[in-house]
Amino acid sequence: MTDSRPIGVFDSGVGGLTVVHALRKRLPSESIVYLGDTARLPYGTKSHGTIERYTLQAGALLQRFDPKLLVIACNTASAHGLEALKRESPAPVIGVIEPGAALAALVPGPVGVLCTNATLQSGAYEKAIRQRNPGAEVHTLACPLLVPLAEEGWFDDPITVETIRRYVADLPPAVKTLVLGCTHYPVLKASLEKAHPGMAWIDSGEAAALAVEKLLTERNAKREGSRGEMKVLLTDPSSRLQEVGSRFLGEELGVVEVVDI
Amino acid sequence: MTDSRPIGVFDSGVGGLTVVHALRKRLPSESIVYLGDTARLPYGTKSHGTIERYTLQAGALLQRFDPKLLVIACNTASAHGLEALKRESPAPVIGVIEPGAALAALVPGPVGVLCTNATLQSGAYEKAIRQRNPGAEVHTLACPLLVPLAEEGWFDDPITVETIRRYVADLPPAVKTLVLGCTHYPVLKASLEKAHPGMAWIDSGEAAALAVEKLLTERNAKREGSRGEMKVLLTDPSSRLQEVGSRFLGEELGVVEVVDI
Repeated sequence: MTDSRPIGVFDSGVGGLTVVHALRKRLPSESIVYLGDTARLPYGTKSHGTIERYTLQAGALLQRFDPKLLVIACNTASAHGLEALKRESPAPVIGVIEPGAALAALVPGPVGVLCTNATLQSGAYEKAIRQRNPGAEVHTLACPLLVPLAEEGWFDDPITVETIRRYVADLPPAVKTLVLGCTHYPVLKASLEKAHPGMAWIDSGEAAALAVEKLLTERNAKREGSRGEMKVLLTDPSSRLQEVGSRFLGEELGVVEVVDI
Repeated sequence: MTDSRPIGVFDSGVGGLTVVHALRKRLPSESIVYLGDTARLPYGTKSHGTIERYTLQAGALLQRFDPKLLVIACNTASAHGLEALKRESPAPVIGVIEPGAALAALVPGPVGVLCTNATLQSGAYEKAIRQRNPGAEVHTLACPLLVPLAEEGWFDDPITVETIRRYVADLPPAVKTLVLGCTHYPVLKASLEKAHPGMAWIDSGEAAALAVEKLLTERNAKREGSRGEMKVLLTDPSSRLQEVGSRFLGEELGVVEVVDI
């Protein structure tokens, strides 16, 4: 049995396209409707109530496409909006925090989490990791400059390397595993590795793609056959964001539809 | 004659507080109602229609306080929303681009303008400078990382210095005067001066404060007497933004009222 309905993916902007990239690598036949709330990004600096409200509005919009599954491809929105959206959505909902936290909980030593201010303040990673490993030592670190550095395209760059070093210097030296707790960060991989060559990285987007595959397999709901279609909806059509988005996705964005939520 | 009604100041976030700082230094008796649209910041990455719509909404909200004057303390909103707001507002409106451009037009050699992507794309500075000096050589440069560096509080910092150098390297070496075309930039003054010790700087916020004083004097509408009150309205109450805002303002923000627009 196959389910040809699309997967709805939601992010505050275009960072979630790194999650779509991981999804399309793992599940190339799935159709995807991506909604980026580019008019109101970033969510990382906003408060709980605002982010929760925006997440519910995005879920309602994606519902029009009758999705078989919703993915919140934004750590901040997962931290603040996942529970509310799970209650309201007819489709199952997967966030990007739980899957990454599940991997982090398996690490024997202390774990660091790099994320936005709002994700830090939610305490979502610590909670999710400790649920699975109550004795885990978790150090969460807000890195507000990494999103703009990624959006500037300074992926492999000495300023990015230096900025990462500055942030990570605040963590205890015993930390040898870092969770990339923001969907923008995977594009900075080259700089992250130059800043800390010995570090192991957990990519929350790749972990989420794995969780999606697991859920669709369990429910016999994978789509088979030809490469799935992709539809991109943005709340603001800034051409620069579309250009950055293509780099995050690793392929052309194609025609973008502008929506108001 | 005095006019004790407040000045309404609008910005996409807390950057406009550097303009309020300049206003309070120059016109300490004026009462100010500040509206920061922190739920929807930054405007710098958004498109014309979105910014214009948000600016009109902000103007409508400030109208409730019966302002004698509105100041758009945001270069991006000035570039995209000033004309529309001038048409709709009962009070006169001053943006931050015209006053800075008027000073830049007096510079004999080429002038550089550092600003956001949206301000760059509007062409507003070039247009405003050339209206006053048709032969002016104007080089406009988008510097997307400077806002997050300012909000991170890395005011006087080697990473900020290096980032400024990287951006300014794209300008012809003959440029010896730079307009700070974003209200966040004045707090980076120490880094700007370290990056380019020989450069002259035009602060668009200080220029705007001068224009406000001129207009109020001409209209006999200055408020006299004790230090004016300040009321701060934000569309999102993030505590970190309030902390950053205090640093931009150079004094405590006081009680912040949360509003929805």
